[in-house]
Order: sequence, then structure tokens, then C-alpha cells
Amino acid sequence: MGNHQKVESSKLREETVAGNGLMDRRTLLRGALFSAGIAAASARIAHADDAVGTQDPEWMKTPGKPFSGYGTPSRWQEKVQRIFTIAPGRAGTGVSRTPLHLLEGTITPAGLHFERHHNGVPDIDPGKHELLIHGMVKRPLAFSLEALLRYPMETRIHFVECSGNSGIFNQPQPQQVTAGELNGLLSCSEWTGVRLSTLLAEAGVTKEAKWVVAEGADAAAMSRSIPLEKCMDDAMIALYQNGEAIRPEQGFPMRLLLPGFEGNMNVKWLRRLNLVDVPVDARDETSHYTELMPSGKARQFMFAQGAKSAIIKPSFGMAMKGPGLYEISGLGWTGAGRVSKVEVSADGGQTWALAALTGPVLPKALTRFRLPWNWDGRPSTLMSRATDETGDTQPTRAGWIAQYAPGQGYHFNGIQSWGIEADGTVKNVYA
Amino acid sequence: MGNHQKVESSKLREETVAGNGLMDRRTLLRGALFSAGIAAASARIAHADDAVGTQDPEWMKTPGKPFSGYGTPSRWQEKVQRIFTIAPGRAGTGVSRTPLHLLEGTITPAGLHFERHHNGVPDIDPGKHELLIHGMVKRPLAFSLEALLRYPMETRIHFVECSGNSGIFNQPQPQQVTAGELNGLLSCSEWTGVRLSTLLAEAGVTKEAKWVVAEGADAAAMSRSIPLEKCMDDAMIALYQNGEAIRPEQGFPMRLLLPGFEGNMNVKWLRRLNLVDVPVDARDETSHYTELMPSGKARQFMFAQGAKSAIIKPSFGMAMKGPGLYEISGLGWTGAGRVSKVEVSADGGQTWALAALTGPVLPKALTRFRLPWNWDGRPSTLMSRATDETGDTQPTRAGWIAQYAPGQGYHFNGIQSWGIEADGTVKNVYA
Repeated sequence: MGNHQKVESSKLREETVAGNGLMDRRTLLRGALFSAGIAAASARIAHADDAVGTQDPEWMKTPGKPFSGYGTPSRWQEKVQRIFTIAPGRAGTGVSRTPLHLLEGTITPAGLHFERHHNGVPDIDPGKHELLIHGMVKRPLAFSLEALLRYPMETRIHFVECSGNSGIFNQPQPQQVTAGELNGLLSCSEWTGVRLSTLLAEAGVTKEAKWVVAEGADAAAMSRSIPLEKCMDDAMIALYQNGEAIRPEQGFPMRLLLPGFEGNMNVKWLRRLNLVDVPVDARDETSHYTELMPSGKARQFMFAQGAKSAIIKPSFGMAMKGPGLYEISGLGWTGAGRVSKVEVSADGGQTWALAALTGPVLPKALTRFRLPWNWDGRPSTLMSRATDETGDTQPTRAGWIAQYAPGQGYHFNGIQSWGIEADGTVKNVYA
Repeated sequence: MGNHQKVESSKLREETVAGNGLMDRRTLLRGALFSAGIAAASARIAHADDAVGTQDPEWMKTPGKPFSGYGTPSRWQEKVQRIFTIAPGRAGTGVSRTPLHLLEGTITPAGLHFERHHNGVPDIDPGKHELLIHGMVKRPLAFSLEALLRYPMETRIHFVECSGNSGIFNQPQPQQVTAGELNGLLSCSEWTGVRLSTLLAEAGVTKEAKWVVAEGADAAAMSRSIPLEKCMDDAMIALYQNGEAIRPEQGFPMRLLLPGFEGNMNVKWLRRLNLVDVPVDARDETSHYTELMPSGKARQFMFAQGAKSAIIKPSFGMAMKGPGLYEISGLGWTGAGRVSKVEVSADGGQTWALAALTGPVLPKALTRFRLPWNWDGRPSTLMSRATDETGDTQPTRAGWIAQYAPGQGYHFNGIQSWGIEADGTVKNVYA
């Protein structure tokens, strides 16, 4: 720590890890570069008679607020809200997005988890709700919430992503909206509940059963067919979200959680699991959530979300305050397991550097990546590219679009780009 | 899965892992035991004309609620609130506890994080707040929130525990209160912020500096002395909690996070870090948070919280509904690193079984343990005992108390016990 003053400006160039100013994070963490001229862009040199050290701010002069039973965010954060898009005339049909650009880390506060409702959020009395497992089973069983609490439970962190997330990248011109509006049909929670395979084993699945039809207790009776194999793998009847009872918008008192599978299949307000031999052709697996191909045929049952990433800091709506050091930070995820790496480019994809993955890297969970960037003030193009443990990596946007018929917008996982202009403005660009 | 019907009742006895009905979790997860007679206590056998399969509940007959900007828990969960103890006549001085008995998993919802305030919660304008690093440094520096956002950040899950947590076990008679009231000065969050060592390196710590005095911008100017070594290790200036800006009750816009160290040292609303050569003898390190020993001398600066655990399910206030299968679930934690194991006893400590640790086992984070229990309906005593990766393990309550002068209640980490009575009542017992 003692010799960092000796660092010369030339050292700065040696510490770059890719073109256009991407820096070595470990060196920065040790503080070795701050005295080389970058610091002035961030910390302010304080003086002995500085106000911050000698004068008490107004909030130190009177007692603060008293205790509260259930806390809420600071009033200075009142703009941190979900972003709605509601179908005309139908208050409970549509989507709300997580404001990713106002958040950090990987957990989504339950109050900001994205929503997708087909006929509003039902107000279910948990004492009257049961989950029925029936159809091709030896013993049809009904589980109350109280009964489920006695079964062996698990706690796991997983993301849920709507398969329509980021469909906006299909538009011919890049839309100038926030990262939340682009990618906010994506949230990540700690889920606790009962492994579905435990309950299916108790019911006794017959040999003929190949699919499970899940039905929600909302006024749309939202239904999807799920392969039995997934139900016997890591599927969960989730009862808790981020430590507390699952929120109404996420399925109180219970939801189906299919880690890594498209959001729509994670049926909320779960009331029935009907074991069958063929899929049921539910509305949301025929008229929606299928991929129209150039041949005119549609691919059905594309379950797992692909490897994907997005830079959140900086992003549209933020302004870079002149040349100097910044942290590039974003999210990587994949429905296939763990993210193995996220690469970042500051020169429009000519050179790439490995970002640091901070926090535990968990399967089918959001993973935060970070890399320092010494911006020289010139126009630049930032990109990120995730690769998962199966080797799946993000295609270019053009490459992704070329796979499908025009307008097919489900399961977008192409590379995203931000253009930084000389005045610090951040724009969505197709690069 | 197919042959579980062949399991005989005698198999049940073979699948026990310790005395008085503690069961093998892996076998249960495979469903192998449910048909042996335990199931009747949990799931209900459904029939073809069962209401749950044939009749739509009322909430499926009308559209549900519309979208909301910032969601709140279900109205059926309105009793899930922090538990207050307020000093008489001083609304902002005292503690609130996390209702652990109403939660599951390991993350604490931010709205339910425990509180400890010395003069209320300040309402800090984040645009006017700065963090000053001064004293024995080469360059005193002031950091605005905006400046800190440009530094390399980290995301980590850590618990915070008040050193007065569980002090109630020092009372001569076991108190009949909930697990939240016993142990709820304990919460766990995903924290994101800047490593303090990065900022100290930039300021340039001088050779004389050995301690750092942290001061909060609350009306109590709460202060603590922290060894420089900890500040150069895993200390963080935390800006985000569970993905969103840190909550006012936890230090908005920034707090000091000292993973594993007693809660009081994790100074909230952090405004100053003064590097010094000797500790400052702040009120909360002299009149409070010291350990009075039998000799009459007090031990000062006992920083790291010890290995500890508590069974949360079942606990006081819950009622066992007759003999049968239950899940025992609880929390293990240690300020020294990772929990290496949690053992559970159902026979008052005569025999112990290893509990499963579900979810990622992270350093200085809450860890959820689980073990199935086939309760035979007779009076029983449940206990849990955590051991951490340094080999530290929980002493008995009597052993813990014997270390100190009478009444010393800080840093309790003795073994806790629940008595289950024949009618299913759960009581706090000293066993």
C-alpha cells in the first residue's frame, strides 16, 4: 500500500486489459492507480477546515424518525418504481418491469419484482387454498399451505425472466429507453419451498405420464404444459421469496418455480398439477411464446432461457461526467446453469476483457459483472457478452434476428451495445 | 420412484439418523417414506369429485388487482412486522427485532431488518452527504455518493447481528417469547458497495495509524473504534441492500459494513472515518458492548460474533398438530467465516444428527439448516449446535454463563432448546 505514489502515468497504460481504457480491476482495488491522476474524477481532496469534517448537517441536530413495523425505502428513492405497460381498458393485464438501472447487486427487492398478469392479481385466502396433484398418479393428493410447511424444504437463489424480455431489440431502430425498459422482465430472488419431485413421488407418478399441466388460481386460470423431466429435476413449489411469504404479484401463497425456464411456465397462484401423457396446447404455448421461423413454421416448447448479459451502469438516462475512471457493471444469466464468463468491450467489439464476477456465482441466478473503465472522453461503444458453463454464448443482434421470421421477438439474447457520446450521453445503439 | 410402495413401516426405523425420530432427509426427498404411513399427517387424499379439482374459488371469478409501482406483502401477512422495544419517552431510541419465526430462507426482507437506533433515523439528503476519510492519512478525501458509484464495487451476502442479541437467555427462567424476540437482533442481506481498503489506499494510510474511528450522521453521532486491520480486510462502504439503495433504518445513503463483527460497529449513516493510533473510547465501547468477567474486570473489543444457531421451526407460538412428519428448520451463523455443520438433537442432547445446509453456504452469512423429524407425540427436547470452519462450536447455556460475571449478556452463543409438550405446545426450556 505504501508505494503507490511512485506509480507513473505510463503505468496506467500497462494496466489496461483491453482497448479504449478497460482497466485491471485487481490493481485498482489495491489502490495503485488512484494517485496516477484518475482520483481527481471521483474523490474530493478535503481540507482541515472542510465543512464535512467540522460542521454538523441539519439531520444531526434533531432526533430522527421512530421505529416502523415494516420499513419502506427512503423518500429520496421515490422514483424507484416498477415500470408499467397495461393493456388498454384492462387494469390487471399486461406487464411491469423491474427498474434494473436503479438497482445494484443481484437480488431484486420483492416490491420491484417484474409482473406479468393475465387477469390481475388474485387475493387468495391462504387458509382456503389447496394444491391438487392429480391425473396420471396412483394417489391424487391435495396440499394445504400448512401441510406443505411440514415437508423437507430448500432455499435457492434463481432468476425468473419472461421470454418476451428484451423483445424490443427486434425493432429496426434502437429505442432510447432505460435498461429497465429494455431488460426489466427479469428479476432474481431467494426462493424457499418444497421440491416438486418430493410431492410427485408421494402421489406416485404412473408410467404413462410425460407432461404436467400447471394451472393458476387467477381469473385467467393461466395454464402451461411442463415436461415431467423438469418437474422431477429442480422444480420447486415456492412458498417464500427473499425470506418472507411470497408476494401476491409473484403467486401468494404458492407458485411453481422452474429454474431457468421462461417466466410464463413458472405458474403463479398454483392450484393444480395434472399429470398427462401429451401437452394440453394451452393458449400460452400455442398463440404465445412460440418462435416463428423463416420457413413459416413455429418452434414450440423452447423452455430454457439462453446465455445473456446487459451492461446496466452506464446505461440510457445516465450521464458520464467527463473523462476519468468509471465502473462498468451489469448482469449476466443463463437458464442452462452457471455463467462461466462475461466479457466486456469498450471499442465496439474489436477487443474484449474478462469482467470480474462479484458475489457467489450460482446456477440459474443473476450474476453481477464489473470492470473499471478509464474513459478518455471520446465517443465509445460498450458491449457485454456472456458465456455459460455449457459453452453457450451470446450471438450478435443481427445473428440472432437472422434465425427467425421477421418480427419474432421471444427469447432475445443477442449482444447489446451502449454508445457513449463525447458529452457523456449514453444511447442505445445497434453496433 | 416406482418401488416406494414396498417400503415397510420397519423401514422407518432404519431411516432414523438420531434418537427420538430424526429422519434421513435424502430418503424423504426421494419420497420413499411417505407411503409408510407418515403422509396422512400432511397431504390429503383427493377424490375425483373433490372441490379443489372441480370448483373454482371465488378469486378466480373476478379480475384481480391491477399493477403497483412498489409492491407490498399480502394482506394475509399483516402480522409479519418488526417487534419493537422503545426506551420510555424516546421514540427513536431502542431496538426492533426481525420476526424470524415468520420468515424462511436466509435473506431478510429489507423492511424487516432489525433496527438499533440511538437517536432515531436521520432523513439524509444523499446529494448533500459526504464521507470524509481523514486523520493519519496522506490525503484527506471526501466522497459523495455520486463519486463512490464510480469506484470498483462488490456484492456479498452477510448477516448483521447486535452483540446484545439473545441476551435474554441470561435470565434465570426461560422466557416464553417467539424466536424473533429471542434472536431477532439478527438479519441478513445482500450488500453492494465499495471495499473500504480501496478508499484507504487512495487516501494513503500513514504508518502510525492503527485504528479507524467511524462516526454516523445521526443525532447521536454514534461512534466506534475499529482496528485498521479489519478496515483493510473485508470492510465495505455499503450503498445497496438486497438490490436497492440501502434503507434509512440501515444507514441510507451509506453504512460501514464489517462482516461478522458485532452490529454496533457497522456504523450507519457513515460520515467520517478518522484514522488514529489509539481507540477513541467511545461510549458504545466503554459503557456498552464490553464483557464483565468474574474478576470484576471487563473485556473490551470482542469484535467477531461466535458460532451460533437457533431452531426457528418449530418454536414458541407454533403448535405441533399431532404425531407425524415435520421439518425442523433453523439458522446457523458465525462471524469467523463459514458454518461447517449444524447438528440437531431431538432427545435433549443425548444423540445428534447432522442437518442439511440448503442454499449456498457463504462466509459470514446466515445458513439455513433442515432435518425431518417424525414426532411420536411424546414430550421431547429439540436443540441445535453450530460449528464453524475454525472449529468453534456452541457451548451449553450453563457453560456460556459460567464464563462471565452475573448478568453479563453480550455475545450469547449458547445452545438453545425447545421443549415440545404432548399437546404440541412449544416452550423455551433450559435443558
